Amino acid sequence: MIRVTIWNEHTLITDEVLAVYPGGIHTYLAKVLGTEEDFEIRTAILEEPEHGLTEAVIESTDVLIWWGHNAHHLVEEEIANRVVAAVQRGMGLIVLHSGHLAKPFRYLMGTSCNLNWRDGDFERVWTVDPSHPIAAGVPASFYLEMEEMYGVRFDIPTPDEVIFMGWFSGGEVFRSGCTWRRGHGKVFYFQPGHETNPSYKHDTLQLIIKNAIRWAQPTYRVEKLISPNAVPSPEERRLAK
Amino acid sequence: MIRVTIWNEHTLITDEVLAVYPGGIHTYLAKVLGTEEDFEIRTAILEEPEHGLTEAVIESTDVLIWWGHNAHHLVEEEIANRVVAAVQRGMGLIVLHSGHLAKPFRYLMGTSCNLNWRDGDFERVWTVDPSHPIAAGVPASFYLEMEEMYGVRFDIPTPDEVIFMGWFSGGEVFRSGCTWRRGHGKVFYFQPGHETNPSYKHDTLQLIIKNAIRWAQPTYRVEKLISPNAVPSPEERRLAK
Amino acid sequence: MIRVTIWNEHTLITDEVLAVYPGGIHTYLAKVLGTEEDFEIRTAILEEPEHGLTEAVIESTDVLIWWGHNAHHLVEEEIANRVVAAVQRGMGLIVLHSGHLAKPFRYLMGTSCNLNWRDGDFERVWTVDPSHPIAAGVPASFYLEMEEMYGVRFDIPTPDEVIFMGWFSGGEVFRSGCTWRRGHGKVFYFQPGHETNPSYKHDTLQLIIKNAIRWAQPTYRVEKLISPNAVPSPEERRLAK
Amino acid sequence: MIRVTIWNEHTLITDEVLAVYPGGIHTYLAKVLGTEEDFEIRTAILEEPEHGLTEAVIESTDVLIWWGHNAHHLVEEEIANRVVAAVQRGMGLIVLHSGHLAKPFRYLMGTSCNLNWRDGDFERVWTVDPSHPIAAGVPASFYLEMEEMYGVRFDIPTPDEVIFMGWFSGGEVFRSGCTWRRGHGKVFYFQPGHETNPSYKHDTLQLIIKNAIRWAQPTYRVEKLISPNAVPSPEERRLAK
Repeated sequence: MIRVTIWNEHTLITDEVLAVYPGGIHTYLAKVLGTEEDFEIRTAILEEPEHGLTEAVIESTDVLIWWGHNAHHLVEEEIANRVVAAVQRGMGLIVLHSGHLAKPFRYLMGTSCNLNWRDGDFERVWTVDPSHPIAAGVPASFYLEMEEMYGVRFDIPTPDEVIFMGWFSGGEVFRSGCTWRRGHGKVFYFQPGHETNPSYKHDTLQLIIKNAIRWAQPTYRVEKLISPNAVPSPEERRLAK
Repeated sequence: MIRVTIWNEHTLITDEVLAVYPGGIHTYLAKVLGTEEDFEIRTAILEEPEHGLTEAVIESTDVLIWWGHNAHHLVEEEIANRVVAAVQRGMGLIVLHSGHLAKPFRYLMGTSCNLNWRDGDFERVWTVDPSHPIAAGVPASFYLEMEEMYGVRFDIPTPDEVIFMGWFSGGEVFRSGCTWRRGHGKVFYFQPGHETNPSYKHDTLQLIIKNAIRWAQPTYRVEKLISPNAVPSPEERRLAK
Repeated sequence: MIRVTIWNEHTLITDEVLAVYPGGIHTYLAKVLGTEEDFEIRTAILEEPEHGLTEAVIESTDVLIWWGHNAHHLVEEEIANRVVAAVQRGMGLIVLHSGHLAKPFRYLMGTSCNLNWRDGDFERVWTVDPSHPIAAGVPASFYLEMEEMYGVRFDIPTPDEVIFMGWFSGGEVFRSGCTWRRGHGKVFYFQPGHETNPSYKHDTLQLIIKNAIRWAQPTYRVEKLISPNAVPSPEERRLAK
Repeated sequence: MIRVTIWNEHTLITDEVLAVYPGGIHTYLAKVLGTEEDFEIRTAILEEPEHGLTEAVIESTDVLIWWGHNAHHLVEEEIANRVVAAVQRGMGLIVLHSGHLAKPFRYLMGTSCNLNWRDGDFERVWTVDPSHPIAAGVPASFYLEMEEMYGVRFDIPTPDEVIFMGWFSGGEVFRSGCTWRRGHGKVFYFQPGHETNPSYKHDTLQLIIKNAIRWAQPTYRVEKLISPNAVPSPEERRLAK
């Protein structure tokens, strides 16, 4: 079982959002992803103690999905750093849409993660890397009738892999699906998912998120991040015997 | 002129260190680098107000050299983040030796930057990428008679470029010279330089640092890091006319 | 002086092409680039002996610009491999537009370099990496009224740097300006430049090619590519003295 | 089942080699790998028609393991290019030791793949990237009592991932385990394995090769590599309905 925790901010859940995603995006994604037999789904929200991300929750999470928008500044440093360290120790992280400015993502990237944006555009998403596991079963391109435009310049470190690129009818392009490794953890950023657009109801988007969860699940995880004092080789070989 | 600021911690400057580098490493490097006609050198230390890195100093610094070891935790978050943002806006950063655990470096990398270490070893440094500007004039390999061993595993994001690799007589290997770009700024990490070893007196090390300063100097710098709200293409074209 | 050789195929130079670029693209580019004081320009064409790329020409070329389309298969293996080896030894290479299927480019990439294409589209080119030297002075985006569409999937190895991305009105996206290093040489691929479209008359395109020439010029060049038999360290140190 | 084909040159199989690996390295590896339930193993050698790599063999191979040394020049261009195209279309390729100069590897890399070498050294192999699937179960470091030294400079494109690094007692370092993607295929280069040294008898080396086979197996494979002529978006959407 892959233990998935979906994080969201309640503050943003307006009537307009609820009309699209009853219960909020996290509730909707939990329902959609919960049908997969190898996923064990939980949700956590900003307004809970420790934002719902206690050490116990983090330690029992294989892949954390992060959606946030208006309340990035309300995330406590300690919790943001706890997520960052968990990724460095092996936990997978999937950052959705406006989560590009969330503290854990910015802290893992080391860049501002700013971008160019505009509400309400038509997007064509292209699969740049069809043999990547996150693109398994995804067509060469697909359409999102209404989505927030995210465009160049996107201030991220050169991704390890660019899997999807977005085309917007207003004239912009974007690296829409990117991966990085940080420490022992894998990070996937995926651009679609404005809170008042029904993108997560799109079969292909759901497939991509499912693929990403399986890709990001840890196969190796360490308890602590340390700088050990090493013995030289002859001693190391003697001790090994 | 390339405006260089060399940063250090005073707290570490023991008699043993002063015996090797009178006035400390920053003073020694300032003297050595100060002979170059295109460099304008300043120093800054932890114990000064704002650690000597006021906004005025940062804004007038092209390349910041960072040496630190025992006092990483004493660097204020605000100042560390000021350095990080300055790099993202275009300033060059050269991180030396034990600076691998300094806040600005860790924050720019997004990893723990831990490594394996041991005092007092013999190192052979190899030039992996001789056509890189930082390696200009550097031999295929050179020797450091006494240097702190830094070895694998080194928890950094995959470097954009690995320019030097280190071989230690105790049996370890290391990616000793690495580059990354973060935002508009360039970062170079260079491993040699333990405070009680005379490595910075080595001609080749001085050459590498000089090369790195010229490589890291900004050609493009922005005042602010923002996420602008874009107009669609037809409007943008109309406005452009 | 940077010694630039511009290569083209004569076979393609139809009346339609000549109407746009009298004398062909190579002649036009030679004129445009020839005004720069630090460039020394030559041209070479497929139909000359050794395709105009004799060993003497290659050895005295700092940066080779390659435009080709219909006659890739007519380029002799020996000459293609000569160009490849020259890049590996340090020569710069700029591959334009339909040169993506030219032998030297494919051999340096190790991939098929196939892409999705269509004649006659409107393109908006975005600057992804404004602080790269090839983007110096280039606006955030610019327009090409009529250009051949090149779209995803583009079968190239992950570029070291993606500097430009293209948006096409027909609904496609492309990594339009990419760099790689191969051996000691630098390679820049740049997408615009269909032979019947006047793109090379665009100021910004000319600026990008000039920037790319200065970026690609070698600072380090070797005569031969060999696998030397090394002496072990103690012997090497003794010999060094 | 993962269909593995192990390739070798017979010409090199001297009495000295046979004393270490009866039947040659390919025969030995076939025996060792053949005990895995998910592997289906075949061998192919240079001296067979089409070097044992007919189209039928290639089409039914998921992962090709290549060991070669003295006879790289005897590999026909057509067969080398067949292997290259198969990788670009999705086949996995594991290149061992002196295969660094084999045509398929050089053609996929686009570099000379030269390195520094010396017979008969002691090697310590370090795991740089312990959370990579190829390193699963591999210790932080392990020893090879006698192995050919391969050292810097190794003329390869920047690897996507460096998983292992080698330390040699004679004073050299090497990127000993590296990965690249080319088209839809995965490539792993692994340094140990001189024909007269018993390295492949080492449990850890066998584990690494098994891991690499599972990592390199294709999940996506195409029949042809083409540059399709695309219809614009409105037409494409109409056709899709």
